[in-house]
Amino acid sequence: MLRRSCFVAVAILGLAAAQAPRRTVSLVVTHGIVVTVDAGRRVIQDGAVAIEGRDIVAVDTAGTIAGRFRGRDTIDARGAVVMPGLVNTHTHAPMVLFRGLADDLALMDWLQKYIFPAEAKTVSPEFVRAGTRLAALEMIESGTTTYADMYYFEEEIARVTKAAGLRGVLGETIIQFPVADAKSPAESLARTERFAAEFAHDDLITPAVAPHAMYTLDTDTLKACRALADRLHIPVLIHLAETEDEVKTAAEKYHATPAAYLDSIGFWGPRTIAAHGVHVTPEDIKILADRHVGISHNPESNMKLASGTAPVPAMRAAGIAVGLGTDGAASNNDLDMFEAMRQAAFLHKLISGDPRAIPAPVAIEMATIGGAKAMGMDAQIGSLEPGKRADVIVVSMDSARQTPMYDAQSHLVYVTRGDDVRTTIVNGRVLMRDRRVLTLNREQVLAEARAYAEKVRAAVGPEGAGKDE
Amino acid sequence: MLRRSCFVAVAILGLAAAQAPRRTVSLVVTHGIVVTVDAGRRVIQDGAVAIEGRDIVAVDTAGTIAGRFRGRDTIDARGAVVMPGLVNTHTHAPMVLFRGLADDLALMDWLQKYIFPAEAKTVSPEFVRAGTRLAALEMIESGTTTYADMYYFEEEIARVTKAAGLRGVLGETIIQFPVADAKSPAESLARTERFAAEFAHDDLITPAVAPHAMYTLDTDTLKACRALADRLHIPVLIHLAETEDEVKTAAEKYHATPAAYLDSIGFWGPRTIAAHGVHVTPEDIKILADRHVGISHNPESNMKLASGTAPVPAMRAAGIAVGLGTDGAASNNDLDMFEAMRQAAFLHKLISGDPRAIPAPVAIEMATIGGAKAMGMDAQIGSLEPGKRADVIVVSMDSARQTPMYDAQSHLVYVTRGDDVRTTIVNGRVLMRDRRVLTLNREQVLAEARAYAEKVRAAVGPEGAGKDE
Repeated sequence: MLRRSCFVAVAILGLAAAQAPRRTVSLVVTHGIVVTVDAGRRVIQDGAVAIEGRDIVAVDTAGTIAGRFRGRDTIDARGAVVMPGLVNTHTHAPMVLFRGLADDLALMDWLQKYIFPAEAKTVSPEFVRAGTRLAALEMIESGTTTYADMYYFEEEIARVTKAAGLRGVLGETIIQFPVADAKSPAESLARTERFAAEFAHDDLITPAVAPHAMYTLDTDTLKACRALADRLHIPVLIHLAETEDEVKTAAEKYHATPAAYLDSIGFWGPRTIAAHGVHVTPEDIKILADRHVGISHNPESNMKLASGTAPVPAMRAAGIAVGLGTDGAASNNDLDMFEAMRQAAFLHKLISGDPRAIPAPVAIEMATIGGAKAMGMDAQIGSLEPGKRADVIVVSMDSARQTPMYDAQSHLVYVTRGDDVRTTIVNGRVLMRDRRVLTLNREQVLAEARAYAEKVRAAVGPEGAGKDE
Repeated sequence: MLRRSCFVAVAILGLAAAQAPRRTVSLVVTHGIVVTVDAGRRVIQDGAVAIEGRDIVAVDTAGTIAGRFRGRDTIDARGAVVMPGLVNTHTHAPMVLFRGLADDLALMDWLQKYIFPAEAKTVSPEFVRAGTRLAALEMIESGTTTYADMYYFEEEIARVTKAAGLRGVLGETIIQFPVADAKSPAESLARTERFAAEFAHDDLITPAVAPHAMYTLDTDTLKACRALADRLHIPVLIHLAETEDEVKTAAEKYHATPAAYLDSIGFWGPRTIAAHGVHVTPEDIKILADRHVGISHNPESNMKLASGTAPVPAMRAAGIAVGLGTDGAASNNDLDMFEAMRQAAFLHKLISGDPRAIPAPVAIEMATIGGAKAMGMDAQIGSLEPGKRADVIVVSMDSARQTPMYDAQSHLVYVTRGDDVRTTIVNGRVLMRDRRVLTLNREQVLAEARAYAEKVRAAVGPEGAGKDE
């Protein structure tokens, strides 16, 4: 009898659910393996995400979502993974136009013979727009939905980013010597302020203050950068302890580590992302943790430029929010965050001597919620949870190299590439659907980039690019 | 007058060339950037390769080839790279069926809780055939044309490899304990001899003797392996100094390093490929160089399993032929040789602290002619040169992440993945054309692999695979 009354009760409840009117929402992504990266790190085997406007309204099993919502548009993710869009915490987007210009050189040769001359002769608002369009195309195609950037003419980068539909935390590079868009740091600070005003309260663009590094700026300018960020309530982006040379400079000039020197001048504050953090001491890690500084870990750039290995496990153990970055494509040479995940896992296993270091779910965490936390944006992005912005990607899992599949998270890190991303959604807007990018004219962007490459070749001369040619 | 007579002479020569009958050949691959990896490391910007039957007959500019040859079939490689097929010097092909089964574990946990139980319950001739078909599909799709393999039921692997059209140096694993296809090393040796007889003088399959490692075999068996290889004139494949444990075992049992112990028993000989060589001393390097042993460097496996870093620059400086390998997909987790190239370049820059270490052309060399040399096959394969076998791949260079292109070799290593391979040719036969694999039924191979994965899941139990599920 008990069993029978239970059956009746369940039947009535089922009927009530079936009869409740389904809410119409703008988009339902359904029947995927949903890797939420929420607090419980829930993975739903046959899951769905309901999206209304720019927001996620529900994440659940496909059955439950089908019972509660009707999508005006539906994306079938059968056999694929549905996960938060990837967060690239450090790049210099327009530098895609210099990718592979001169590899395998000593750092100073590379910068002084190639990158600096090329930048001096080619960087302009038009160049920056063309480069950002190419970078945006590549990011959309490889599942990056938010990126942090420092370069020149950053307001141009912001306009292109917004038009492409991507989310950006963007800062005008501030550096002591004259650059393409400013004769002095004061000019760059003024440009930052105008840029911040133009994009105040923008839904996609978060302006930032981006002092280049402690070794390329004097103390007064670094303090002015912090003051401006505090006054405008915007984030700060900076390079930190990328090379041993930087550590040497800090020791010689300030008798301190880069992190300790910056602490001593009151530079650190919340919503500050320090890129690299390769050569940091345990005391530096304590400072960064105490000041709630986020770290952008760039394993590929650090390997390719032979910079060293950031102590990521120790940083995480100290409670620091660590995100992943690609760095500029000139030193990587692409913007593929799946590569960054794989490399982070590989690198820290090797360096620690422990194959359990940075397991796949942690690499995924760093590429999503970790990066969001590092930038103080984890209330908005970085996981699939109701109330967050709908930054969602659908990732194919049906290639030969992804077959068979025992564990979706392992596959995302160890056998998946950016090219497997099928669909990219930012702020509820579909930017790429079934590999077709909807917000950029792909052929035009590629043709424009190739045309700029001719100018770059001319700028560096015959000794430079095109060694084969 | 002089100029005029020159003009006339050139015109006559030109006329003669135009009038000379063009030789008809089976296939011309034309208008690609031809990366020959020949002795001069020639790169031809608008180049072509003429193929007759199984052999390359000419490699030159597209114009010259067009003047001399007419192809019964033509492949237009405009905008793409044409290069030698990649040589994977170490894998265990059927282990693709275990890829991602249990990642991020300590080595012994991984082997003893997952891989060994799964192998004990699932490895059979049918399993090995299904796994090899999947591996062959993945290799063809990612530009590998020759691979070295050690596993069980190797004659089954050979039959599938030959049917798929790939070139293989294949050896039955010989190990002290009972395995799926042999109760003892003696049985494995007998199986090796039968296998070698079946494929003697085969154009694609080179049988090999494959003792597992010095720590899993006794001295008598290792000597018997060498004797069999010498008697049959076939290559030898072995693991060497992959982990610190192996070094410890050698020290305890033989008071020598693994390389020195194997030397002391007369094991080393020509056409011997030692996989890994992570923990080798300068004296070991001298032994390996003196004995003309080839090394298979497996950077991804060595990083993922935290094995350590092989001293590849020192090995190359000592004159050792070093090739690249992926290792089995269970510890990588794919068979993509482009990843192996990138990883080799990244890893040795980081470890040496020198961004000039293993530049892109050297990574390409190791993945092609280096691997061929390590296996004693450089007279037949590893470069695009007249008289060599026509093992050729065409690699797309038109993705966003490959735009712009300043240097084809840099792009091959730093921004290209296996998925960019468009066409794969082995022994003059087109195995994949414009991404369509012609020698395997793709959907059937994938379905069969997924079916085997169910058996693997059952074999390792609920604690094992499918942690998400």
